[in-house]
Amino acid sequence: MNQSSQKLRLHIRLRIYKDDLLFGTGIAELMEWVEKTGSLSAACREMGMAYSKGWKIVRRAETQLGYSLMDGKKGGSSGGQMVLTDQGRELLRRYRQMETEIIQLADEVFARYFSDVNL
Amino acid sequence: MNQSSQKLRLHIRLRIYKDDLLFGTGIAELMEWVEKTGSLSAACREMGMAYSKGWKIVRRAETQLGYSLMDGKKGGSSGGQMVLTDQGRELLRRYRQMETEIIQLADEVFARYFSDVNL
Repeated sequence: MNQSSQKLRLHIRLRIYKDDLLFGTGIAELMEWVEKTGSLSAACREMGMAYSKGWKIVRRAETQLGYSLMDGKKGGSSGGQMVLTDQGRELLRRYRQMETEIIQLADEVFARYFSDVNL
Repeated sequence: MNQSSQKLRLHIRLRIYKDDLLFGTGIAELMEWVEKTGSLSAACREMGMAYSKGWKIVRRAETQLGYSLMDGKKGGSSGGQMVLTDQGRELLRRYRQMETEIIQLADEVFARYFSDVNL
């Protein structure tokens, strides 16, 4: 018997590296907030992330990619000025789709290995 | 053109949760070091981990599992006294096998989404 009735859950964190960390769930979420709020600083606030950190994550990705993920006033506190570039939006879409596919496959494998209650 | 010639790599971190974090790469590696060194404190040293942290990770897993992962003198600094239980060894084996399978599937998905050089 297990000690509690909570089910086992698998959590997966994906990260894409090139020279350095390039892309992952953090920047994906940040970009989605930029899309919603039109502002990098508002996006950072939504994520409880320091603006300097958000900006660093975006810059690190853009440097390695060789293109911009977002366009507009990066430093502005007025908001409503930042949009994802087409390339940024495409990368984000592709990453999220890949992530969904991997999580689904991984959950299937996990269930196969850990479906019996007693481990 | 990309900014550098480094290839993109996918990194995956797996974690199994129940009430709390139960198992993952950290404790798997720790158990492998216990297997090699016969000592939890030596295993922690090999991983650059405080003994108190190693002990906490093991205890947290064991509490949720309802069985022991290792047996012997947990606090001893003499070493050579700690072995994995059969259940511990089986859980470790199963986790590593699942991990290998998931990484392989994920790498295939990753290659499908990100094989083109320009992202």
